[in-house]
Amino acid sequence: MTIKETLAIIQRGTEEILPLDELKKKLEKNKPLRVKLGMDPTAPDLHLGHTVVINKMKQLQDLGHEIIFLIGDFTGMIGDPTGKNVTRKALTKSEVLENAKSYEDQVFKILDKDKTKIAFNSEWMGKMSSSEMISLASKHTVARMLERDDFSKRYKSGQPISIHEFLYPLVQGFDSVALQADIELGGSDQKFNLLVGRDLQKQANMEPQVILTMPILEGLDGVQKMSKSLDNYIGIDEPADSMFGKLMSISDELMWKYLELLSFESLETIESWKQEVVDGENPRNIKFRLAQEIITRFHDSDQAKKAQQNFIDRFAKNQIPDEMDEFTFSQGTKIANLLKDSNLVSSTSEAFRMIRQGAAKMDGEKISDKDLTPVAGTSIYQVGKRKFAKVTIV
Amino acid sequence: MTIKETLAIIQRGTEEILPLDELKKKLEKNKPLRVKLGMDPTAPDLHLGHTVVINKMKQLQDLGHEIIFLIGDFTGMIGDPTGKNVTRKALTKSEVLENAKSYEDQVFKILDKDKTKIAFNSEWMGKMSSSEMISLASKHTVARMLERDDFSKRYKSGQPISIHEFLYPLVQGFDSVALQADIELGGSDQKFNLLVGRDLQKQANMEPQVILTMPILEGLDGVQKMSKSLDNYIGIDEPADSMFGKLMSISDELMWKYLELLSFESLETIESWKQEVVDGENPRNIKFRLAQEIITRFHDSDQAKKAQQNFIDRFAKNQIPDEMDEFTFSQGTKIANLLKDSNLVSSTSEAFRMIRQGAAKMDGEKISDKDLTPVAGTSIYQVGKRKFAKVTIV
Repeated sequence: MTIKETLAIIQRGTEEILPLDELKKKLEKNKPLRVKLGMDPTAPDLHLGHTVVINKMKQLQDLGHEIIFLIGDFTGMIGDPTGKNVTRKALTKSEVLENAKSYEDQVFKILDKDKTKIAFNSEWMGKMSSSEMISLASKHTVARMLERDDFSKRYKSGQPISIHEFLYPLVQGFDSVALQADIELGGSDQKFNLLVGRDLQKQANMEPQVILTMPILEGLDGVQKMSKSLDNYIGIDEPADSMFGKLMSISDELMWKYLELLSFESLETIESWKQEVVDGENPRNIKFRLAQEIITRFHDSDQAKKAQQNFIDRFAKNQIPDEMDEFTFSQGTKIANLLKDSNLVSSTSEAFRMIRQGAAKMDGEKISDKDLTPVAGTSIYQVGKRKFAKVTIV
Repeated sequence: MTIKETLAIIQRGTEEILPLDELKKKLEKNKPLRVKLGMDPTAPDLHLGHTVVINKMKQLQDLGHEIIFLIGDFTGMIGDPTGKNVTRKALTKSEVLENAKSYEDQVFKILDKDKTKIAFNSEWMGKMSSSEMISLASKHTVARMLERDDFSKRYKSGQPISIHEFLYPLVQGFDSVALQADIELGGSDQKFNLLVGRDLQKQANMEPQVILTMPILEGLDGVQKMSKSLDNYIGIDEPADSMFGKLMSISDELMWKYLELLSFESLETIESWKQEVVDGENPRNIKFRLAQEIITRFHDSDQAKKAQQNFIDRFAKNQIPDEMDEFTFSQGTKIANLLKDSNLVSSTSEAFRMIRQGAAKMDGEKISDKDLTPVAGTSIYQVGKRKFAKVTIV
C-alpha cells in the first residue's frame, strides 16, 4: 500500500491531524508506530459515540501499528481531591482494575486483543516525587492553561478552578513522554490536552507525537452529542432488536455520517451506495446494511439477521406504509398535541379518547399514558389502522 | 506581665496582625507559642532591613515563645526548573547547609542560639509523593492565586507565569502545617503566602496560625526600600566606622522610624528622647545613641565607642560646624554643579579648580574625580577651610 493510500484511510472521518506532514514522515519510516489512546478509569458503559475513536484505532491496528490503551488509574485513584466534583470520586486499585477489565471486554469487540497493549499510568506516576511534579508543572504557563476552552469559560464566569486541575493535563501529557507515543488519538474536545503531550515530548528532546482528533458523534436526534444523559444513544451492549430499531430511526443524512464514522466498509463502497440511492434505491435498505454491520460487530451475524426480520415483521403486522408524512416537534410536546398537530386526530379530546381506547400507538406499542411527553428521537405514531406519521422530537 | 503589656510589645512597629483577637486567645493559654519565620536558602548577606523581622522574633523569644527558623531548602534544591530565572538556580544540599550556617552566624547576633530551632522543609517535602502534591494543589484556586499582587501584574501584562510558581506558596503554607506554627512572621510583601499557610492549617483541622507582618524598612535615602542593589543599605557585617557614618547621615525623621524598628529601647524611652529634642537637644546626639546600640549589637561596645570618637574627631579635624546650609539634589547631579548650587563655589570652573587643588572634600575625604556623580544619601561637602554644606542626593 502506498503512503497516499495509507493516509486516505487514516484521514477518513478525522477532524484534525496535527501536523499532517509529520505524520507522513513517520509513515515513511515504514515501521510500526506507537498509537496512544488515554482512557478514563471510571466505570465504562460504551455507546457508539465512544467507538468513533476506537474504530480509528482499529484502522491503525489493521495498518500494522502498535495500539496502546492507557488507563489513567493514577489520577483516577486521586479522584477529585476537592470533593466538589462528585462524579470524580477516588477509585481503589481493585475498582480501577475491574473497570479496566470491563473496558477491555467492550473494546475487544472492535480491536484485536492479541495486538493491543494495555498500560496504566500509575506505573510511572506512582514513582514520581513531589519535586519531579513541581518540575513537570514548570513546563507550562498559567496563561496557556487558561486558554483551554473550559478553563477560560470557568475563569471568566467566576467559577472556581482548583490548581490541581492544571496538573492533570500535564500528567496526561507526561504519559506520552513515558510511552514514547508517535500518535495520540482523542475526541476533538481533547485537542488541548493532546497538544500538551506534544509539547512535553519536545521539551524532553523526543520526536513529538502527531495528534489526531475525531469528531463528536451526534446522537439519534442528529443534533446533540450522543450521550447517555440525553437518552439519544445506542449502547454497544444493547439487545440487537433495540439497536436495530434505533438505527432505523435516524435521518437519511445522519446515516451517511454514521457510515463514515462507524462502518468499516470502504469509502468507495459507501460512495457506490450513495449512487444507488440516487438511482432510486430506498435509503431504508442502506440503513439495513449499516445495522447489519454494527449488530454483527457487537453481537453476531445471526442476531443481526434476526433483528432485521423482527423489524420487518413488526412493520408488516402494523401495516406500516413505506411513505408517510413527517413532522418535527420540540421536546416537552404533550402526546395529545403531538397526535393532533401531526393530523392523526382532529382535536386533543379525540386524542385522549383514542389513547383511552388503546387505538394510539408509538412504534407499534400502545400509548397508555395520556400525559406522555415523548423524549428526543424519531418514532412512528399510529392512530387506528390506517393513520401514520413519522415524528421527530428535537 | 499582663496580656495587654505583652501585646503592646508584639504590636510595636507591626504592619498587620491577622486576626488580633486570635493572637490574644493564643497568648491567654499562657504557654510558649511556635513562631515560624521562613527563609530563603540562597546566600544570605543581611542588612538592617532584614533585621526588622528578626528583631520581632527576638522580642517574641524574650517573651518566652519558641522560635523556629525554617530554611526552604526543598524548593531551593529544585531552584527554578524553567531555567528562565537565573537568580533562582538549583542549590546542592551542601550549598544549602553552608548558606544556612552563614545565615545562623548572622541571626545569632540578635537571637539566642540556644533557644532557637532551625528546621529544613526538605524533611517533610522530600518524602511527599506526586499524588500528595496534587492533593495539596487542590486546596487552592487559580483565581485566588492570581489575586496575589505580583502574579496579577504579570498575568495582566502578558508576562509568563509557570504553573509551578503556583505550587511554591502552597509548599510554604504546608510548612506551617508540618511545623504546627501558631504565629508566622514575614515582611508585608509576604502577607499572601502567610495567609495560604493559615488556610491550609484550617483545611487540616488545625488551629490556624496568626500572621504578623512587618513594614519594609526604608534605606538611607528615606524613600526607597533598603536594598543592596540600590546601595542605600547598612550591612550587618559592615565595619563599625562605616555603620556609624551611614547612621549619622539619615534624616531626623527616619531616625525615629529606625528607633521603632531597629532599637530594643522601650517605646517609653524613645518617647522621652523625643521630648528631649523638643526641649532643645541636638538630634545628632539621639543618632549617637541609635548608632551605639546597633554597632554594639553587631560588633561590640568598644568598637561602638571608638567609631563615635572617630566620627567626632573627623568632624573636629575638619572643623565642621554643627549648623550649616542644607540642600537636596537629584541623583545624577555632577559634583561641579553640586558644589556651585550649594554655594560652595561661584562657578563650575572654580569647582574644577578646587577639585584639582585638592581643596574640595566630601565627608572629610578629598574629591579626586571631577566627573563624580554622588550616589543617594547625605554627605557633608567642604571647600577650603571654612565653607560647608550638607547635601542630600535623592
